[in-house]
Parts: sequence; structure tokens; C-alpha cells
Amino acid sequence: MTDERLERDSMGVIGVAKDAFWGAQTQRALLHFHIGQERFPRSFIRALGLAKRAAAETNMQLQRLDPRRGEAIVAAAIRMIAGELDPHFPLTIWQSGSGTQTNMNANEVLAYVANRQLGELAGTPGAVHPNDHCNLGQSTNDLFPTAMHIAAVEQLHQQLFPALLRLQLAVQQQVVAWQDIIKLGRTHLQDATPLTLGQEFSAYVTQLGWGLARLEATLPRLYPLAQGGTAVGTGLNTAIGFAEQFAARIAMLTGLPFTSAENKFAALAGHEPLVELSAMLSTLAVSLNKMANDIRLLGSGPRSGLGELLLPANEPGSSIMPGKVNPTQCEVLTMVCAQVIGNHTSINMAAAQGQLQLNVFKPLMIYNLLQSLQLLSDAMASFAEYCIAGLQPDRARMAELLERSLMLVTALAPRLGYEQAAALAQAALGNGTTLREEVIRSGCLSAQEFNQWVQPQQMLAPH
Amino acid sequence: MTDERLERDSMGVIGVAKDAFWGAQTQRALLHFHIGQERFPRSFIRALGLAKRAAAETNMQLQRLDPRRGEAIVAAAIRMIAGELDPHFPLTIWQSGSGTQTNMNANEVLAYVANRQLGELAGTPGAVHPNDHCNLGQSTNDLFPTAMHIAAVEQLHQQLFPALLRLQLAVQQQVVAWQDIIKLGRTHLQDATPLTLGQEFSAYVTQLGWGLARLEATLPRLYPLAQGGTAVGTGLNTAIGFAEQFAARIAMLTGLPFTSAENKFAALAGHEPLVELSAMLSTLAVSLNKMANDIRLLGSGPRSGLGELLLPANEPGSSIMPGKVNPTQCEVLTMVCAQVIGNHTSINMAAAQGQLQLNVFKPLMIYNLLQSLQLLSDAMASFAEYCIAGLQPDRARMAELLERSLMLVTALAPRLGYEQAAALAQAALGNGTTLREEVIRSGCLSAQEFNQWVQPQQMLAPH
Amino acid sequence: MTDERLERDSMGVIGVAKDAFWGAQTQRALLHFHIGQERFPRSFIRALGLAKRAAAETNMQLQRLDPRRGEAIVAAAIRMIAGELDPHFPLTIWQSGSGTQTNMNANEVLAYVANRQLGELAGTPGAVHPNDHCNLGQSTNDLFPTAMHIAAVEQLHQQLFPALLRLQLAVQQQVVAWQDIIKLGRTHLQDATPLTLGQEFSAYVTQLGWGLARLEATLPRLYPLAQGGTAVGTGLNTAIGFAEQFAARIAMLTGLPFTSAENKFAALAGHEPLVELSAMLSTLAVSLNKMANDIRLLGSGPRSGLGELLLPANEPGSSIMPGKVNPTQCEVLTMVCAQVIGNHTSINMAAAQGQLQLNVFKPLMIYNLLQSLQLLSDAMASFAEYCIAGLQPDRARMAELLERSLMLVTALAPRLGYEQAAALAQAALGNGTTLREEVIRSGCLSAQEFNQWVQPQQMLAPH
Amino acid sequence: MTDERLERDSMGVIGVAKDAFWGAQTQRALLHFHIGQERFPRSFIRALGLAKRAAAETNMQLQRLDPRRGEAIVAAAIRMIAGELDPHFPLTIWQSGSGTQTNMNANEVLAYVANRQLGELAGTPGAVHPNDHCNLGQSTNDLFPTAMHIAAVEQLHQQLFPALLRLQLAVQQQVVAWQDIIKLGRTHLQDATPLTLGQEFSAYVTQLGWGLARLEATLPRLYPLAQGGTAVGTGLNTAIGFAEQFAARIAMLTGLPFTSAENKFAALAGHEPLVELSAMLSTLAVSLNKMANDIRLLGSGPRSGLGELLLPANEPGSSIMPGKVNPTQCEVLTMVCAQVIGNHTSINMAAAQGQLQLNVFKPLMIYNLLQSLQLLSDAMASFAEYCIAGLQPDRARMAELLERSLMLVTALAPRLGYEQAAALAQAALGNGTTLREEVIRSGCLSAQEFNQWVQPQQMLAPH
Repeated sequence: MTDERLERDSMGVIGVAKDAFWGAQTQRALLHFHIGQERFPRSFIRALGLAKRAAAETNMQLQRLDPRRGEAIVAAAIRMIAGELDPHFPLTIWQSGSGTQTNMNANEVLAYVANRQLGELAGTPGAVHPNDHCNLGQSTNDLFPTAMHIAAVEQLHQQLFPALLRLQLAVQQQVVAWQDIIKLGRTHLQDATPLTLGQEFSAYVTQLGWGLARLEATLPRLYPLAQGGTAVGTGLNTAIGFAEQFAARIAMLTGLPFTSAENKFAALAGHEPLVELSAMLSTLAVSLNKMANDIRLLGSGPRSGLGELLLPANEPGSSIMPGKVNPTQCEVLTMVCAQVIGNHTSINMAAAQGQLQLNVFKPLMIYNLLQSLQLLSDAMASFAEYCIAGLQPDRARMAELLERSLMLVTALAPRLGYEQAAALAQAALGNGTTLREEVIRSGCLSAQEFNQWVQPQQMLAPH
Repeated sequence: MTDERLERDSMGVIGVAKDAFWGAQTQRALLHFHIGQERFPRSFIRALGLAKRAAAETNMQLQRLDPRRGEAIVAAAIRMIAGELDPHFPLTIWQSGSGTQTNMNANEVLAYVANRQLGELAGTPGAVHPNDHCNLGQSTNDLFPTAMHIAAVEQLHQQLFPALLRLQLAVQQQVVAWQDIIKLGRTHLQDATPLTLGQEFSAYVTQLGWGLARLEATLPRLYPLAQGGTAVGTGLNTAIGFAEQFAARIAMLTGLPFTSAENKFAALAGHEPLVELSAMLSTLAVSLNKMANDIRLLGSGPRSGLGELLLPANEPGSSIMPGKVNPTQCEVLTMVCAQVIGNHTSINMAAAQGQLQLNVFKPLMIYNLLQSLQLLSDAMASFAEYCIAGLQPDRARMAELLERSLMLVTALAPRLGYEQAAALAQAALGNGTTLREEVIRSGCLSAQEFNQWVQPQQMLAPH
Repeated sequence: MTDERLERDSMGVIGVAKDAFWGAQTQRALLHFHIGQERFPRSFIRALGLAKRAAAETNMQLQRLDPRRGEAIVAAAIRMIAGELDPHFPLTIWQSGSGTQTNMNANEVLAYVANRQLGELAGTPGAVHPNDHCNLGQSTNDLFPTAMHIAAVEQLHQQLFPALLRLQLAVQQQVVAWQDIIKLGRTHLQDATPLTLGQEFSAYVTQLGWGLARLEATLPRLYPLAQGGTAVGTGLNTAIGFAEQFAARIAMLTGLPFTSAENKFAALAGHEPLVELSAMLSTLAVSLNKMANDIRLLGSGPRSGLGELLLPANEPGSSIMPGKVNPTQCEVLTMVCAQVIGNHTSINMAAAQGQLQLNVFKPLMIYNLLQSLQLLSDAMASFAEYCIAGLQPDRARMAELLERSLMLVTALAPRLGYEQAAALAQAALGNGTTLREEVIRSGCLSAQEFNQWVQPQQMLAPH
Repeated sequence: MTDERLERDSMGVIGVAKDAFWGAQTQRALLHFHIGQERFPRSFIRALGLAKRAAAETNMQLQRLDPRRGEAIVAAAIRMIAGELDPHFPLTIWQSGSGTQTNMNANEVLAYVANRQLGELAGTPGAVHPNDHCNLGQSTNDLFPTAMHIAAVEQLHQQLFPALLRLQLAVQQQVVAWQDIIKLGRTHLQDATPLTLGQEFSAYVTQLGWGLARLEATLPRLYPLAQGGTAVGTGLNTAIGFAEQFAARIAMLTGLPFTSAENKFAALAGHEPLVELSAMLSTLAVSLNKMANDIRLLGSGPRSGLGELLLPANEPGSSIMPGKVNPTQCEVLTMVCAQVIGNHTSINMAAAQGQLQLNVFKPLMIYNLLQSLQLLSDAMASFAEYCIAGLQPDRARMAELLERSLMLVTALAPRLGYEQAAALAQAALGNGTTLREEVIRSGCLSAQEFNQWVQPQQMLAPH
């Protein structure tokens, strides 16, 4: 074919499309891994570029890489970091479990771009070689997990934390706004004793705050990077000091306190720090699922449900039922939660199956982890703006439901004893009367005593 | 110690409590596997006894085992099947992943009981030997999975199917009893168009029926037994015909059409038939979880929830709130569902990790599977009796909630078009009016036309 | 903006890009669901188009839709089925849990295309209306699950079954080719008794065959379609006969025996048939994971592992270690298995959370299910071609490992008894001798007797 | 029946066995929850007793409970803490999702024991009442989660941390002992570059250390207790100061820094702190699974596997294959890991389904969590003693496998370039030669140069 050029690697020659920047190994991967559609996201290609840049700079500093080639590689990596070379990363995550093909894809693309800049022909003595220069002092086995950590931590700081804080703030604003609205509490989904709507939502503020604390607690194990371990963790073929200088450069480039992992053997073969992050995202999903479900319940109706909250009407709810409004932000958030929890299962299974000096489920793990980070970030931001901020309390409805309930009887238990109080509630339920009617009829208390002792606003705290 | 006797195996001698029927290998296992409390359930010890009995009988028939020893082993196995020897199975499931210790426990106990009957001293020429006679022509590797299948299938037939059918019948009775009660439907937990309470519950009948069909569909892969594969699947050291005659005996003893697996290699190393059964139990749990949640929702209240169903008051619901009734049967059923789904995760992980000629997660798999079977059986029977049968519809409440809803407007969409119908529903919601009021006020329809076209009882089927 | 046009729905007007075929509701969804990147795959848009076509045709046949509008909708649906309109489906799966936005996207696109063909202006009396005509007699609540079933079943028949059969055939060819290669078996990953390489691989043939049988067993619950249930399952606003005629049309269009679900309430609110399919895919993943792991183990080396199989060298294995060949097809397959098992967790959680008349996790469920189907199909085909077909047995290595092993002693146990046989094996291990040397030295057997009784080729079946 | 006494609660009278200490509510629960066998473990009954004791003491201190009754309750609670009353807790975990029946079981047993001590007849004015005194100022809804936290944290400190440290120490001792044993590394399960056996095991030390750090990081959210929230989180019917004084007492009784939760609403309805703990146990299981699998691989053989480690022979490995030794401690540990990961699925599902003011999956959650804690503790201790401590390296075997490998070529890549190095390795593999032979034959290096540059002991660190 005239629109192909020939590329070679240690296995021989192969044709590559003329306008593609990648080389022989990437092309072989396109042939042998014709599976699925799932590409690495932008955040990962960026992280890989950051690692390649830092490696080249460190190698130059250690005088293992000549500045001419080194600067050209760095220039290419800067374009890769910025996303300009994304179209030249055609592989899906379904490849070697070490991510070798994508590392080689990066090496090949960087070499190609660098050689173009240098005016060198690939394979000639002055050219940049994908393995000997772009991958100098590196192995996929340390480079790839390094990029995994960088991508995950950046996304955590840049997307997830802001979204979580935004959601927490939105809820907190409603807590303040609703602090005096007294309503019925529900346990076992059954009528229980009163609380304020602000108190009800304050639980979510706490849960989100703890969610944040949990995620932050994973960082001490995410900042240490595998780079410098090379093939099996020993650091063969890399220079003394490379690992530490590399980590310092990444810290500088990202503004985040990355360090060099103390034990590189663990860093190549065990990815528990990423499992831990996924686990804490999954735990956050547990909190979010509950909050979304609660709001769905409280907003059920509008006429024949609990109806305590009015949901924002963002879109027509039904293609057949005119005028319907649905809790769609709750639904999308709970779907995201189910996805994140499922992703964690995959990550868990993957991490548990490492063997000796390597875990070979790396692309799968980072794909699922970055998806969880992205989806939770987006969905929390969306929920804050299109659900929480737009919720309206129906005060009249809440007052009516509280009034109607029998569980205010609990306030009488300390006076009358549990058993007599129970008998009164059961009688009211059976007779279809209010608690007040039943208590007064029973002669236990006068109307005045009832009024004094059964005051919802006195039932909101210890006394 | 004076209350010990010495027992020996291929590794040497070890002291065993005098009143214990087990031998050296069981005793070693007690020392080296001091982990957890989880014992094999009755159903599994029974299945193991059935397999040992059938093996001894088949070996006698094939003239590989002398009748004197063989009959003594059979007699001991009959006691084991009946549960008389359960106290002599002290090991937990936390042992060798092949179940070797429990197989040897059985061999040792059977030999002990048989030797007592025969008046033989262990280790003497005329005695029954745990390996050479009780385990004759067998390996743990084929015996243990054989017992796994027998136990699972027996529990499926004897406990789960009857409980499932009992629950389905209980629901079906309510479907018939409630077929004329018209009520509001809810989608997205929001008011939707009407259906009957009978129709609502008819979904569960279908879901349960399909749950049964799914479980039955696993049987063709559960009836084939591994026995006869011995150590690696080849059948070394067993006789031609043993596998088939053994399976026929098990079929006769259980009354269930067990057969001999065509491929014994798969039967030792891959336990997908058990995974499949667990998966279908997990799918049943999905159905049950939804049913229990629905009933919890419909029974929420009693005063300030949906309140369409009155829950049976089986016990006081709260230690602090007098007179409270809770949907406790729904709660226990949903807890069971969560357990079954979690068990399936363990079983899945376990089955996926077989290596070459053996899967060594067998005790874990059967423990979780039998637990799932037991819990679902018990919980479905309990739910049928203490929840479904005791539910009372609140017809007045259902009529009130239906009347109040705006989604009857859907019946007008074919006449007025979706957009005008939507405008009417939105106006009614905004104005706090009924749909009827709003439609008539708008002049779209006369009161008579409204009455003619908006009839809930006409909205329950296609026209 | 000059490159926008105004579109309206029941909530008002909104600007849409001029070259977009979608309308107001799709545009609103783009604003309110700015979450993730995951689009519906081709197979689902096709299925949605099939359902829309069949609905329009059935409505014409029932004389509820005029042929002029009807034919225009059908013509547009045919383009949608073929994939021509895919760029006009911009929404991700992160939307209303019923899929309402994507159903409305389809209605809007079809109406737009139909109106262009008819030369009608949207909103005028002669125009096609997205709800009143494209969605006639339908609700998202029945249409969307209908498309879910169609897409899943088509992908099962068109992709998964062929890939599975292709893999099974590739393995079967090796079983035949390798039926006489005797090798060491391994249980607990420890040396055990012999089997042939063909026997070893025959397990996979059985496992794959049962995997197929399991998947086929789900079809009776996948063919029944929800269409005709409309909003809550009653069939309100659709015509008698619509459901059945619709299903018959889908059967004709797809060549697959789809039917109309007997109970539409279950079909809208419970998606156990899809859970079941996912569960069986997950069970298939369990089998595939084991097979891939076995081949990885047998191919470990090339010099210092088991080394019984030579792996095909599809690509350079390492960016740092020259000449390395890795079991990359095993790795990609096991990654796919972890993904499929994780997807099942999401689907399980989603299906368990239906409420009353609707399950609102539909887009999530079908996204994960179709991903599982796609990945397993692709990975099985890849594994057949790039792994199984290229495996080469190392006969000399297998003979050497068999010769060296001590577990041939098992053949002597019936003659010498378990305990003496054990002593011989332990002695050989301790002395570093062969079993033959040790047995003869012990005087138990003569060399001739040993040769007669310990023959690996006699240890491959019962005798 | 003559051996029954009559007991009453707010629902009426019921017969209870004469020698049982429990009352009417426990008895009702035995009738209505006839499901499964799973009881609360000792650690939980102890925690419940601690909470009851602290509550009674605090109530006395706050002068809400008279010292006569109070002291009697405390005395009974002390017996409960010690385990003396365990036979009187007959209920399984399959009950109300709030744990109401077990809380009432405690209240009834304590009242019974206290009344016996006081010589009071239940129901008389001077008697201790289960609700009015034993449950004073408490609700199941705050008491039960309080006990959950106490039990989990105690088991973490008393069992899990010591076992983890014991295992880490056992591994660390081998790291030191084996620091000079050079062996072949393996990535993708293929021969790779060398490392020492000490380096290989050092990864586990790091992974275990991080496992510990992760678990400790959960404590800040486990120490805060729900007590004082009563029914819905407001603290109705309890006294100001009760919550804080209660927590201080628990801290004193346990020696652990328990505090009072700031937000009681979250503490009743969201159990993410327990999810988080389970998640970190599950992450620990990921590490343990990998370690056990590695040791199984390295110990495969004894003759025809990798054979680098000799496994301790704790028991006969096979019932059919004499003399077999199996990695049974690896197997039991990986089974425990699968159980713990499955338990986490159940806990996750349970926690995600809280509704409004209560999560009703509490017994399920604590059962699974305490099982995970117990199993991991026991299995780690067992693994340390019966596996790690008994491992023997086979130095000769390791030297042989290293010598044989071709991946020492990696040391030449910096000198010869990746491509030439690859060609040499491929040639050696194809020709069946050693790397040394092939390199010298190729003329790239002299024998002296080869010896200088290819030294495994120089390949263990950066240079």
C-alpha cells in the first residue's frame, strides 16, 4: 500500500499508516488485541507524558542521556502532556497486563516526534530510539504504575475533592436554611419521633466530610512512586539517584508531594494503594447512594407519596405521562454508585492476582479507577447543582405528617412507662384517633398535661 | 495424658482424645488449622456419608472390597448419614482447599466405627484401614466435589424448591384476593397511572416462577458427579465401571437422577456448576430484595407514609418507641439477600482460581453455597407465613391516593396531545387543584367528557 | 447564536445546534447530565431503532397511525438501525434511570428526519410529533427494556456464540493433536499422577460447552419483550394486540423468536433475565480465567518455569528485557474476566434496587451487559487465534518432568498399601533419588516388577 | 406445659422455658425468625454488655436510675461481659435489621438476673423493667451500632493487629535470613532479571505494614459512638451529658479512646466507618492472597515445579497419593481472603441501603465484619507459624534456574542496545544454548567481557 511506511522492532518489519506517529510495536498491538473500545482517558495519557518528561530530564541531569536527544524527547513529552498527541494513542486497555504496548506506544510516538524535530531518520545512529532513549533507565513495570499513581492523584485533587466539597457546601446551605423546620423522623421506613429537616440533612454533611477524610488518608500510600524499580524492582539498568530525582521532578511538575517508593518490589507487584483508593471511592458511593435514596423518598409524590420535598423539574419526566417530574439526578447518582462499586470488584479481583514480581492487570485497574473518579466527580457536581440547590421543602406537608403521627407517644414513655405508652399508641391506631384524643380519653393525662409534655420542638435534643 | 490414645498415620504418631472416633490426620488438622468456627453443615456430612456408603457398596460389587470390611463400612456410613457421628467431625471448613482433612476425618471415623463392630484393632491385618479400605478407589479430589453436588442438589430439592413454591403460592393467593383493588402505580417513586393491587403483586409471582425455572435449569450440570476421577481426573486406581455404578447407587439412595460426569478433569478443577447455582440463587435474591422493598414502601406509615398495606404486628418494633410495628420480615429477607449476593462473590472468586488439575477452594465454596440455600429457604418460608399471608390492604387509603393523583391525565394524552395534557397536569400541580377541576376550568373537556374518558378502571389494560 | 435553532417541548424553548437532528429534550439532557463519557454502543442504538420501526409498523397495521407519517417514521428508523443517525445520539448512559432521555432522543431524531422527508415544519398540524407519533402507544418504560433485550440477544447470537464456538473448536483441535502426549498432572500445584496433554485440555472443551449451554438456558426469559406494558405495565394507551404484533415484527426483523412477555409488570420493574444473562457471562469468565491461568502456568519459563508449552511470540514482551515473550493473550483474557465479574456486581446491585412499577438503573445495566458481551466475544476470538492455535507442546520437557516426579508411587499404593508407598516417596524425596531407585533399593519390588507396575501410560484411566 | 413460665410484653403473654433467662420479646423472635444458624459471636455479646453496663452507670451518675436497680443491672452486665450469660442469647442474626430483638434479649436477660438478685418479681413496682430501666435513655437504634463499633475496635486491637504484626515479623526474619540468596525474578510468570529471595519477601513486609497503616487510619471514625442519639438521632428521652459520659465510661472500661459521635443522625443511618474497616480488611486480603499465591508458586514441585522453596510438611497431603505434601496453609489463607472479600460485598450492599433515619442491615453487617476480623486474625497467625516460619530455600535449585535463564541479557542492553540484545536472547532460546555461549559465539563480547558485565550480584540495584 502506498499510504503505509515500514517500521521495524526486535521482531521484524510491519507496515504502519503514513500519518500515524506510532511504530511497529503499537501496530502489532493493533493486530493482536482487537478487543473492545475502551481507551485510556486523557488524564492517563497526560500522566504517562509527565513520567516520560521527568525521566528524560532526570537522565540528562544524571548525564546518561545527551541533551540533544533529551531536549527533543522533553519537547515531545510536553506536547503529549498537553494532549496534542492523543490521536496517536490508538490502543485500548485490552493489551498486555503490564501496559507494555501503551508504554511502547509512548516511546514510539515520542521518538517519532523527536526525530522529526531533530531531522533524524529512525534507525540511524543519531536518531532517538524508542527503547534506548525514550525508555532509558525505565521499564514498563515501573513506568506504568508510576503513571497510574500520578493520574489517580491528580484526578483526586483536581476533580474529586472540589466536587465533593461543592456538594457538601450545597447540603450545608440547606442545613442552615432548614434548621427550624420540624418534621417526622422515620426508622424502618415507619413513623418515628421528630427531628428538623436541617438535622436530617446534617447527616449527609458529616458523611461527606468523612468521605473526604477517608480519601485523604489514602494519599500517604499514593504519593510514593514505583519509578526506579525497572524490570523487577531492583533498579537494574538505572542510575543511583534516578528514582529520587525523578520523583522530585514529578512533584515539581504536578505541585503534589510525590516521593520515591521505599520498596519497589511491592510497588510493581502489589497495587493495594490503588485498591485502597477504589475502596474509599466505593465507600463514598455508599454514602451518596443513601443520600440520593433519601431525597427520592422524601420527594416522592407529588401528590401521593411522602411529598416533603419538591424536586426541581429539570426536564419532562415521561414520554407517555404528561407533566411528570422525576428524581433523575438521584437516579443518575445511584447508577454511578452501582458502577463505582462494581468497578471496585474488578479492581479487587485484579489486584489479588499479582504473581511474583508483577501484577499484570494494570490497564484494567487504572481504567476502572479513573472511571470511578470521573463519574463520582461529575455526578456530585451535577447533584449539587441540579438537585440539592433546587430542593424546596413543603412545610405544610411536613407539619401535617408530623401532626398525624402516633410516635410522639415516645415523649410520654418516661412518664407513663413503656407498656402503658404502647397501649395508648395501639389504641389510637386501632381507633383511627389522634394520639392526643386517645391519651385524653384514657384519662392518663389532661389536655393541659398532654400539651405540656408532647411538644415536638422539645423532642429534638436531650433534656 | 491418661485420657488420650495414640494414633498414627504416614507422618508418625499423635495423641487423640480417648472418646473421639477420629484418628491422626484429623488430630493434626485440629492443630494446624486453628481458624474460625465455621463447621460443615449437617447436609454436607450426610452427603459425604452417602458417597462413602455408595463407594463401599460399589467396591464390594466389583469385588475390590471384601464383604466383611465392606459391610462394616456401610453400617458405619449409615450412622454417619443419619447424623449419629456428627460430633466426631470437629474440623472447620478452614483446612486444605481440597477438603482432604474432612475426607480423612470421614475415613478415620468410618474405620474406627467399623473396627469396633468387627472387633479389630487398628493397624492389624484384619482391620479396616482409613485409606486402603474406606478411601478405596477414591481420592479426596473426586469424593469431595461429589459430596458437594449431592448436598447442594438435595438441599435444593428438599428445602429451597418447597419454600419458593410456598412463597409463590402465598403471593398468588393475594393476587387473587386483591385483583379488583384499583390503586395508583408509581414509577421513579413518583405518582403514575393506575393498576390493581393484584396486578402489582402478580409481578412477584412471575419473578418467583422464573426464579424456579432458572434454578431448575442448572440441574443438568449438577447431577453429573466427579466420583471415579480419583487424583487428577484419569480414574487411576479405580476400576472400570466404578464411576457409573457409584452414580447409579447415589441416584437410588437419594431418589435423584445423579449421573457420572463425562469429563472428570473438569469436574475436579472447575466448579462452574456450583457457581451457576450460586448465581441463580443470587438472581433469586435480586427478585426477593425488590419484593421486600416494595412491601416495605407500601407498608410505610402507619400514618405518615404510603400506608397502602398494613403490616402484620409480629413483635414490638422498638425498645424506645412504644407501639411501633416494623417491617421486620422485609428486613430479614433483605439481609439474607445481601448475604447471598456476598456469598456469590466469594464463590466466584474461589472458582476462578482453580489451577491445572484441581480447584483448592472447595470447602469455602460449599460452605457459602449451602448457607445461601439454607438462608433463602428459611427466609422465604418465613416471609410467606409472617409477612405475605398477614398483609392487609387499606382500600380507603389507596382510593384516596389514587383520587388525588394527577397522572390520570395520561388517559387524555391520546385525545389532547402530549403537550396540552402536560400543561394541564402542571397547572393542577401549581394551583393545588384536582386534575378534574383543572381540565374543566380549562374548557378542554366538559365534566361529562372528563368522567367518560378518565376512568381508572378503564386504565388497567390496552383498549 | 446564529448557528442554533429554537426547539420546544412541554417545558418551553431551548436552543439546539442547527446541524443536530435532536430536539429540546435531548438538549436539556446535555445540560443536566454532564457526566462521564460512556455512550450507548451501536448494538443498542440499532435495537432501539428496530423497536421504533416495529412500533410504527404495528401502529399503522392497527390503524392508529396514518400511513403518511408512519412510513416516514419507518424510513427514518431504517436509517437509525443502519447506524446512519448515530452522530445524533449524543447522550451518555448517565441520565434518567429509565432511559427517558435516550428514548426521547430517538423520538426527536426520528420526527426530525421524518419531517424533513415529508417537508413538514415541526409543530405544525401535519408534522410528525416526537411523543404523539414516534412514541405512540409506547412509554420509555416498556420501549427501553424491549431494546435492552433485543440488543443483548442479538449480541449473544451474533458475536458471543460464534466466538465461544470458535474457541472451543480451537481447543478441541489441540485435544486431538495432543491426545498421546503423556505428562505430569498437578494438584495443589504439586506434582501428582500423570495424564495426557489432550486430557488436560479436554476439561476446557467441556467447560466451554457447558458455558454455552448455560447461556442458551437464559434465552426463554430473554425472548419475552416488555413492549405493550406502557407506563406501569397495564398497557394503558396502547391497543389490544399491539404487544403481540409488535413482538412478531421484531421476531421477523431479527430472525429470532421474540415474544410478548406474559407479565408486563415484572418486565418493567424486574430485570432478572438480564441479571441471569450477566451471571452466566460471569460464570463463563470463571471458566476462561482458569483456562488462561493454566496456560500461563504451563507456558511459564521459557527456561526456568514449568515450560511445558511454548507460547506464540506475538510481540516483544518487554521494553527493558530484550527477547522476552509474555503470555499477553492470557493476560488480556483474565483482565476481561475481571471486568465481566465486576460488571456483574454493578448489574446485580442495580437490579436489586427496583421500586414498585419501575427499575431505574436501566442504562447502567445494559451498558455493562453489552460491554461484557463485547469483551468476552472479542477476547475469546483473540485467544483462539493468537494463543490456543499457536501453542506448541515441549514434549521433551514434559517427559523429563514426568520422569522426575515421585507421584507415580500412587500406582503402587493398591499393591503395597498407602503407608508403605508413602514411606517410599518420602525416602526418595529425602535422598534425592528417583522413585525407581528407592523402590528397588527397599526390596519391595524387583526392577522388573517396578517396570511392570509403574507405567505412566497405564495410569491414564481406570482398569 | 409444666416446664414453661408465662412472660408478657406490650403485645401480650407468651410461654418461655423455665430455665431460660430471656423474656417475651426474645421468645417471640424465636418464633418469627426461624432462619439460619448464625449467632452473634462472643465479642459482640461482650460489647453489648459493656454498653449496657456503661449506660446503667451513667444513668445512675445522672440520677436517672436508682442505685438499687442500677447496681443490680451493672452486676448482671458484668456477668454478661464475662460470657456467663451467653446461653441465654439464643437468637440468630436473622431478625429485625436494627437488632431490636437482640437488644431486647439483653434487656430481658439483665432484668431477669437483676430481679433474681434483688428478689423482685417481674412486673411488680420494685422490679427492674427491661425497657424502663435496662434500656433507660437508650434505643436499639443507638445502642446496637454502639456495640458494633466497640466489638469491631476491640477485635481489631486484641486479635487482628497482633496477628498481623506476628506475620510481618515472621516474614521479616526470613528477609534477613535470605538477604544474600540470589535468584531469578519473574514477571508475567516468565523468567526475568535477578533479585534476592530477601528482596522478594521484603515486598510482603511493606505490604503488611501498609495494611496495618490503612487499618489504623480507620480508627478516627470508629471511636465515635452513636450512643445518646436514641430513636432517630436527636437524643430524645436521654439526658444532657449522657452521650459524653457514656463514651468516657466505655473508654475507661476498654482502655480505648472511644468518644461520642458529633453527628448522631449519621451514626444511626450510615455505617460507612464499618464499611471502611471492612474495605481495609478486604484490601489486606488482597495482599495476603498475593503472598500466599507466590509461596504456592515458589513451592510448587517438589520435583517438577519451580521448587525454590520447600514447604513444611504439616500433614499428609493426599488420601490417594502417598507422600504428597501440599501448600495447605496457602490454601486456607486464600480461602479466607475470598471469604473476606465476599463479606465486604455483603457489607457494602447493606450499608448502601439505609433509609432516612436508620440503616436496617445492622446484624448482617456486624456478623460479616466480625467474621472477617476473626478469620484474618486466625489465618495470619496460622500462616506465620505453620507456613512462613517453616519455609526452607532450595539454594541449589535457585542457582540452577538463574544460571539457565536468558534474561541476564538485560544487563547487556545498555551496552549493545535493546535490539541486538534481543536478537542474542532469541538466538539462545532457538539454539538451546546458554546466553553466555550465544554472546561469545556472536562475537559481540569476549568471554572476559561477558563475565565482567553479566554478574547477577551486580544486577540487584541501580548503579
